[in-house]
Amino acid sequence: MSEKINVAVLGATGMIGQRFVEMLEDHPYFNIEGLYASERSEGKKFGDTLKVRDYAYKQETLDMKISKMDLDHIAKNCRIAFSGIPSDLAGPTETELAKKGVAVFTNAGSHRMDEHVPIIVPEVNVHQFDSVKDQDTYKDGGYIVTNANCSSTGIVVPLKALQDAFGIKQVFVSTYQAISGAGYPGVPSLDIVGNVLPYISHEEEKMESEIAKMLGTYGNGKFNYSDIVVTANCARVPVIDGHTESLVLELKGNPSVEEVAKALADFRGEPQKLGLPSAPEQPIIVRSEPNRPQPIYDVFAGTPERARGMASTVGRISKSNGYYKMWVVSHNTLRGGAGGSILNAEYAYKAGIL
Amino acid sequence: MSEKINVAVLGATGMIGQRFVEMLEDHPYFNIEGLYASERSEGKKFGDTLKVRDYAYKQETLDMKISKMDLDHIAKNCRIAFSGIPSDLAGPTETELAKKGVAVFTNAGSHRMDEHVPIIVPEVNVHQFDSVKDQDTYKDGGYIVTNANCSSTGIVVPLKALQDAFGIKQVFVSTYQAISGAGYPGVPSLDIVGNVLPYISHEEEKMESEIAKMLGTYGNGKFNYSDIVVTANCARVPVIDGHTESLVLELKGNPSVEEVAKALADFRGEPQKLGLPSAPEQPIIVRSEPNRPQPIYDVFAGTPERARGMASTVGRISKSNGYYKMWVVSHNTLRGGAGGSILNAEYAYKAGIL
Amino acid sequence: MSEKINVAVLGATGMIGQRFVEMLEDHPYFNIEGLYASERSEGKKFGDTLKVRDYAYKQETLDMKISKMDLDHIAKNCRIAFSGIPSDLAGPTETELAKKGVAVFTNAGSHRMDEHVPIIVPEVNVHQFDSVKDQDTYKDGGYIVTNANCSSTGIVVPLKALQDAFGIKQVFVSTYQAISGAGYPGVPSLDIVGNVLPYISHEEEKMESEIAKMLGTYGNGKFNYSDIVVTANCARVPVIDGHTESLVLELKGNPSVEEVAKALADFRGEPQKLGLPSAPEQPIIVRSEPNRPQPIYDVFAGTPERARGMASTVGRISKSNGYYKMWVVSHNTLRGGAGGSILNAEYAYKAGIL
Amino acid sequence: MSEKINVAVLGATGMIGQRFVEMLEDHPYFNIEGLYASERSEGKKFGDTLKVRDYAYKQETLDMKISKMDLDHIAKNCRIAFSGIPSDLAGPTETELAKKGVAVFTNAGSHRMDEHVPIIVPEVNVHQFDSVKDQDTYKDGGYIVTNANCSSTGIVVPLKALQDAFGIKQVFVSTYQAISGAGYPGVPSLDIVGNVLPYISHEEEKMESEIAKMLGTYGNGKFNYSDIVVTANCARVPVIDGHTESLVLELKGNPSVEEVAKALADFRGEPQKLGLPSAPEQPIIVRSEPNRPQPIYDVFAGTPERARGMASTVGRISKSNGYYKMWVVSHNTLRGGAGGSILNAEYAYKAGIL
Repeated sequence: MSEKINVAVLGATGMIGQRFVEMLEDHPYFNIEGLYASERSEGKKFGDTLKVRDYAYKQETLDMKISKMDLDHIAKNCRIAFSGIPSDLAGPTETELAKKGVAVFTNAGSHRMDEHVPIIVPEVNVHQFDSVKDQDTYKDGGYIVTNANCSSTGIVVPLKALQDAFGIKQVFVSTYQAISGAGYPGVPSLDIVGNVLPYISHEEEKMESEIAKMLGTYGNGKFNYSDIVVTANCARVPVIDGHTESLVLELKGNPSVEEVAKALADFRGEPQKLGLPSAPEQPIIVRSEPNRPQPIYDVFAGTPERARGMASTVGRISKSNGYYKMWVVSHNTLRGGAGGSILNAEYAYKAGIL
Repeated sequence: MSEKINVAVLGATGMIGQRFVEMLEDHPYFNIEGLYASERSEGKKFGDTLKVRDYAYKQETLDMKISKMDLDHIAKNCRIAFSGIPSDLAGPTETELAKKGVAVFTNAGSHRMDEHVPIIVPEVNVHQFDSVKDQDTYKDGGYIVTNANCSSTGIVVPLKALQDAFGIKQVFVSTYQAISGAGYPGVPSLDIVGNVLPYISHEEEKMESEIAKMLGTYGNGKFNYSDIVVTANCARVPVIDGHTESLVLELKGNPSVEEVAKALADFRGEPQKLGLPSAPEQPIIVRSEPNRPQPIYDVFAGTPERARGMASTVGRISKSNGYYKMWVVSHNTLRGGAGGSILNAEYAYKAGIL
Repeated sequence: MSEKINVAVLGATGMIGQRFVEMLEDHPYFNIEGLYASERSEGKKFGDTLKVRDYAYKQETLDMKISKMDLDHIAKNCRIAFSGIPSDLAGPTETELAKKGVAVFTNAGSHRMDEHVPIIVPEVNVHQFDSVKDQDTYKDGGYIVTNANCSSTGIVVPLKALQDAFGIKQVFVSTYQAISGAGYPGVPSLDIVGNVLPYISHEEEKMESEIAKMLGTYGNGKFNYSDIVVTANCARVPVIDGHTESLVLELKGNPSVEEVAKALADFRGEPQKLGLPSAPEQPIIVRSEPNRPQPIYDVFAGTPERARGMASTVGRISKSNGYYKMWVVSHNTLRGGAGGSILNAEYAYKAGIL
Repeated sequence: MSEKINVAVLGATGMIGQRFVEMLEDHPYFNIEGLYASERSEGKKFGDTLKVRDYAYKQETLDMKISKMDLDHIAKNCRIAFSGIPSDLAGPTETELAKKGVAVFTNAGSHRMDEHVPIIVPEVNVHQFDSVKDQDTYKDGGYIVTNANCSSTGIVVPLKALQDAFGIKQVFVSTYQAISGAGYPGVPSLDIVGNVLPYISHEEEKMESEIAKMLGTYGNGKFNYSDIVVTANCARVPVIDGHTESLVLELKGNPSVEEVAKALADFRGEPQKLGLPSAPEQPIIVRSEPNRPQPIYDVFAGTPERARGMASTVGRISKSNGYYKMWVVSHNTLRGGAGGSILNAEYAYKAGIL
């Protein structure tokens, strides 16, 4: 245990924070030093703050006490902070921690568009990790790495696979997003039971820009965005966990549906090559049933056990009017949230930048 | 009462049949001669077969008895049959009724692609009514007119408005369809509570072909399809009534968002010009709130009272990457079902082909 | 119009406030002088604050502006204040208004257990209206009348009918309460989608005490509680509007199931005798189908139109182990909320205490 | 492997059948010889028939082929048949299998009230196993043992604990039952989304009689029913898995709430004493939080892993009007379905009657 890296979980009483805790229990590289949240929760037992439905925490985890966010304490005791705090708070807190020498792996959106802050999905763009070295705080060991927003994450691995195999001209995506993506208390039940909410603040803009940033490059101190055109429509639906997304793609070349399916199923990225602990062996599961993927069946796709909920499932691949259509389901708070940042930290560990 | 036209409602115990009954109560042109369904329901009171949640039938309607489908009886007593029977039964039954001289206005899909059978949404293509005169049975007064499938109907009026104003090159649509669209018993609850079902058998193909047929022309004895390209992804969501659809449009010209909104809001079609009883005064309601349309608020759009649920509501109109994005909500069993056929029959009445 | 009584709606941006507005449009006795809410909503159009799904407000109502709660202004301009504000604010505000001579009809629970404040369901206990004359503020025309909490209201009319007909020894009730009962934003969707919440703060205590108070008497300056024993278990379920309640009753005598049904169906109270505008002609609808009542079908029970949602529906009446079992559905924000207070004010109007 | 007892799963394509398969994977006593269902499913892969949402079957299980129910084949190859087939089919099939010498452990209700057929929940009434010896077929090794219906099972273990500790006079129970209890396709979504269905055919009668049978005795060749009076109201709610039940109990003596809680938490039955593989270490989990139990958090209660979903969770224990109130959540297709029969078979194995 003594050789594991101490990590802090920020926002441990929230939806993303609790997924961080779940994935960090018995982690081979990391050791939870403390659970941090707002002063309001100080001293509560973690087990009394649960928001996640399908939890299976160990008793000793349930008994951990929540601490308030003392940044000096964290900086002194932790090499890493995993941040699941709301974006409005996340900005200054994360900046401060980086200044104090902490490597911050965050789900918050505050810094995603910062000059030298990368949005990493390690199957896609670990080369953009270079950008952290250009962050002012890097010389003292502190930096910020973000994961993508949940709806971007779910599709960017399949997009990367198709970009590598054929090239992509443009992407039309409509989302069917789960309510856990809005955190807790999040979406009022009166707004979503029996309803579709075709509006998620700034989500469409985020998808259109984040994907272009991730599929681009980093060089000469700046990000060069991909010229892939992404047009997104985003809606919330009454699903607890698991974003469903419909895709229409304009690909280069004229691959067959079978070739597209094979390119997706065969894709492996750096996390797979490096055998990162939370990396799914097969990051994209391709299903051939006519009625899959569905969130109720596919949200937890991903093996081995530690990578549960870390794979994207693609199905209903077809061709129409020269476009390629498909549907994707992914877990929005595992792959698209806490799991994304943990995978980023695992990569950083292996890459020697911790 | 004696001057009203007698009509039969086929499939009166189903979701669509019950919407026919609702819209035909006290109808200024039509009089319900009888309610027809399978032998299994013969003799039951209509009020004991209810499937529709928000019903407000008159007591005398609730007390009407269901009859079995005696086609000779119907042909003898009714000028019109409104058909809400399942597509597999609808085909031969409707053909038979047309042969017997009945004007069949049907929600079933069986005949939609027949050579001389039109799919009419009267704001869009009443000129295609000409095709019924080429049906073999027309000489004896019998013919078949279909309404479009529910997801096509919801968007085809907005598409027509934009085609007239600017021209349309292509359409990308993703649907969030209500469960009432699958009839009763329809979708098992275990399949849809907390889930998205990204598969509705043949729905995408229907949307891609029906819209092209409706936006085309009829001449020289055949339908000429529009060259507008429609690419559709269709899913079911846990909503009772009201289809939500996300649209991405490639328009001709380069209208502003305001011009697009105005073209939609100002659009009026033949039903409005003729003042048909079930026609909404304003067939397309345009909303400017950031979070509208939503099925819970907009499903019943349409005035006056008789046109409740007959308008499409469009909102969140924006421009991105040169495309026009917007969301549409419409009532799938009123506008997209029974109401569509009733409006067609009202037009036929006014046009003198009854 | 000039002869109508001016009324203020307090909390007009909330679930109950909006039901007040709905029932007060074109009211024969009352005229909405103003819509009042917290400072945060000041100046907004009522139509931009909608929370209720099935609304059908007139355009002029949608265009009304929200004012902040200036109690002097209200006291000067309104004889009545209908209060839908949250209980924590309601207490002092309502006291203040009564002091200023306003008759306050409130849905809030703050004053329900006050010494001279009655909880009125006018089919049950209009005689308890006497208590308002013992309120200190009555001499200047001000007083407070509360309606019962929503789950008590739904069953107290059937209980009154059975008490009158046979006598009741005790009542066991389990509730299946709709989410609108918690107001907006109210219940987080993550807590209720696909779930039952077997806990509503203080609801069980309220039911046990409020029903005993209402079924008791008022005399010699104090309330004498009924000795009917009520044992309640309360839960929230994913239903938008409409409380369902299961009852087990120990009755006096040994009536047959048919006699119980008849006593319920035949019951009429003061509102029916006086022909109050919002009174349902038949306050208790008895249904004989094996699977009724259900909230989706029965929530809006009540005729004429102005009394829509004001009747309780009872069904599945049976006898087991000497107990009488039945199920009740009622509209929790109409009958169990705004409608209750409006009916109280209508009674006060007729009784000459306005 | 060779020493394990071969078992057949009947109805393997249904909700209960699939839970049998889940709990029988790698079972220490039993080996799945075959998966059986109707002819319609013959030859399908088990993995193509999935109905259960949270499944995690091994690949070799997913690849197993469904066979049709050849009773001779089953009798020849299997000592046990676990039956998850619908009650109308179950009756004669199970009788036939017992005649052929098979020990049938069934979830179906067909034989529950038969003269010598026990309803066993082994924490409660393993002594009633004696009754199987009086079944005609026992001499040849065949017999039928049923598990209780799902809503009875959830509460009968807590009732047994309280009967043992204090004695029970009567029980009032209202259920909030999950839709998986109706099997697949089961409840139509139009009937349950946003609704409560206060009617489940014969469920109330079953609860009232099954619990009295289980809490009684078997002697002199017949069952002697307990005189505990059970009065039940049963409803379906939009929950996938997990029955919630509200209880009001009349106990003997006058125990404190703490004593009641302790009696529940401390209770252990035969399965615990024998260490049966699927027995939860603690069969009744008592929770002290004000808002528990809830199906989303407590449905899978039970340790160790093999007993997941096998414990009942009790909470909100209180006293009112001399009655004891509490809420119970249990998994209706694990504890209340397949798991019940498996536990029965495990007991039979240990008791030497296999």
